[in-house]
Amino acid sequence: MSAQLQEQIHITDVAPRDGLQNQAIHLATADKLRLIELLVDAGVASIEAASFVSPKAVPQMADAAELLPQVQSRFPALRTSVLVPNLKGLERAHAAGAREIAVVLSASETMNRKNINMGLDQACEVSEQTLAAARALGLRTRAYVAVAFDCPFEGATPLDAVLRLAARMHAAAADEIVIADTIGSAAPGQVKQRLGALRGVVPVERLAVHFHDTRGMGVANAWAALEAGVRRFDASVGGIGGCPFAPGAAGNVATEDLVLMAELSGFATGISLPGLVAAVDFAQDRLQRPLGGRAITWLRRPRS
Amino acid sequence: MSAQLQEQIHITDVAPRDGLQNQAIHLATADKLRLIELLVDAGVASIEAASFVSPKAVPQMADAAELLPQVQSRFPALRTSVLVPNLKGLERAHAAGAREIAVVLSASETMNRKNINMGLDQACEVSEQTLAAARALGLRTRAYVAVAFDCPFEGATPLDAVLRLAARMHAAAADEIVIADTIGSAAPGQVKQRLGALRGVVPVERLAVHFHDTRGMGVANAWAALEAGVRRFDASVGGIGGCPFAPGAAGNVATEDLVLMAELSGFATGISLPGLVAAVDFAQDRLQRPLGGRAITWLRRPRS
Repeated sequence: MSAQLQEQIHITDVAPRDGLQNQAIHLATADKLRLIELLVDAGVASIEAASFVSPKAVPQMADAAELLPQVQSRFPALRTSVLVPNLKGLERAHAAGAREIAVVLSASETMNRKNINMGLDQACEVSEQTLAAARALGLRTRAYVAVAFDCPFEGATPLDAVLRLAARMHAAAADEIVIADTIGSAAPGQVKQRLGALRGVVPVERLAVHFHDTRGMGVANAWAALEAGVRRFDASVGGIGGCPFAPGAAGNVATEDLVLMAELSGFATGISLPGLVAAVDFAQDRLQRPLGGRAITWLRRPRS
Repeated sequence: MSAQLQEQIHITDVAPRDGLQNQAIHLATADKLRLIELLVDAGVASIEAASFVSPKAVPQMADAAELLPQVQSRFPALRTSVLVPNLKGLERAHAAGAREIAVVLSASETMNRKNINMGLDQACEVSEQTLAAARALGLRTRAYVAVAFDCPFEGATPLDAVLRLAARMHAAAADEIVIADTIGSAAPGQVKQRLGALRGVVPVERLAVHFHDTRGMGVANAWAALEAGVRRFDASVGGIGGCPFAPGAAGNVATEDLVLMAELSGFATGISLPGLVAAVDFAQDRLQRPLGGRAITWLRRPRS
C-alpha cells in the first residue's frame, strides 16, 4: 500500500508508566531513562513517563520527580505525559516541570472506590478540578476513562456511563480523552459500537484508545478503532504491563504489534520495528522475564 | 450484545488436516477420531478431516481412506471436507465415500511449482478439472486460493492474480472459494482491500477466509473479514498447524480465538469455548507440545 498517501497515527508508549508500575523488579531511574532513549531512537514521539501517585501505593513510580526533568531535558521534542491523581499530584508534577498530565477516571463506582477510594461522582469532580488547574498552568491534558468496556467488579460498563464521563471530560477541555479497556476484555464489535457512539459526544480527533491484550484481541481492537476513525493509541513496548488494581488485567497491547499492523495496513507511525525490538530486548534483560507482543517471534526471526 | 439478533458465522476447523499435516508426532487414527469427536462435542459443524495426497509427501495423512468413512459414519451431521490435489486424489476420496472435497490452487507461479510441481496455468486447469469431476459426482466443493496475500518465494501477490483465480474457481462452480493467507503475513487493511475487490468477482456468501497467525494478526484479520461481509472462516483448534511447503508459516488462527472474538462481537458460532479448550488439552497431550491460541491463558483461568 506504499503507493497510497499514508495517514499518520499517533502512538503514546505507556511502558514507562502503565507498563512498569506493577512489575516485580523495580527499574532504576537510569534504566528507565535508557528504555525511554531506546523508544525515542525507535521513533516514538510520545510517552507516558511516570505517575505522581503515592510512592506507598506504587513504589515503582517513586522517582517520578527525579525522572521527569531528566526525560524532558534529554528529549525536548518528546511529548512526555505524567499521570496525576488529583490536585496534589498535579502540584508535584508541575514542580517537576511537567508539560503534559493525565487524569484517570473509572467508569464504574466500585473501580473508583478500589482504585482511589472515592465514588464516581467525587472522582469525576476531582478530575475536572485537576484538568482545570492544569489548563490554568498551560499544560496539555489527557483524561482516561478507565474500565470503559467492563469493570472487574461490576461486569459490563453501561455505555451511557462512558458517554457521560467522556462528555464531561470533553467539557472540561481535556486535549485527549482516552477510552481504556483496562482489563483487556473488549472485542472489536464492542469497540466499533462504543467508539461510534463516543464520536457523537467527543470530536474523533480528541479520542484516543488504550487496549490491554488479556484475551489476544488488542490488535483486532486497534483495527476496529482505526476503522472508527480514531488515530491516537496507547501501547506498551513489549506488551509490558497490567493494572495492579484490576484483577486479571494483562499487559497493554504491544507497541510493536500495533506498529506492524498499522504500517502493513497503510498507516504511517514514524516508528521503526527493529528499534522497538531493541527496546523489548533491553526491558526483558532488566525485568528478567520474557517480553514481547504477539508478533515478537516473527519480528526476531533470523534474516537472510 | 445479547439483545441484538445474532448473525451466524460458519467455522470449518482444519486442525485434523492443515493442523496435523506437518506435526512432528503422528497421531493414530483413533486419536484423530477422538479430536474430531471433541470438536463435534464443542459444537463445530464443519471440519477438514484429511487430505488425499501422496502419503510419501505427507505421511500424517496416510490414513485418510481409513479415517474418512469412520468420521462420516460416526458424525453424519458433520460437514466433512477432504483435500484432493487432482483427479487421482478425487478418485481415492470418492472411493472412501467423500461428500465434500477441497482443491488448493496457489496464486503464484513458484508456490505451485514448489507445492505440486506444476506451473500456475496447469495448476488452475487441474483444479478446474477436479472441481468439474467432483460436481459430476454430486460432491460439495471448496477451492482454496493460497498465498492470496504474499508468497514466501515471490513476495506480494498481485491482487489481479487473486481476482482472476477466484473468478475462475467461481466459474468452475466451487461452492466455497477460500482466500488463504498461507504464511500469515496479511494485515487487516489488506484483508479489507482484497475482500472488497473479491466481492466484485465472487458472491460474498461463497467467500471464505483462511488465516494463519504468524504475526499475531489472525484475529484482527478475521474481524476485517467480518466487516467485509464474509461469514465463512477456517480456523484450527489450539492454533495447531503450519504449512510444510511455506517457509515461516505458523499455525492457523486458533478456533477458540475466533469464536471468542466473534461471540463477544455479537455473532453466533454455535461453538462452546470450554468444549474447544477440552479439544486443545487433548491435542496438547497427544502432540506433546504447548498448544492454544492467543487467548488460551485467559480461557484456562481458574473460575471462582
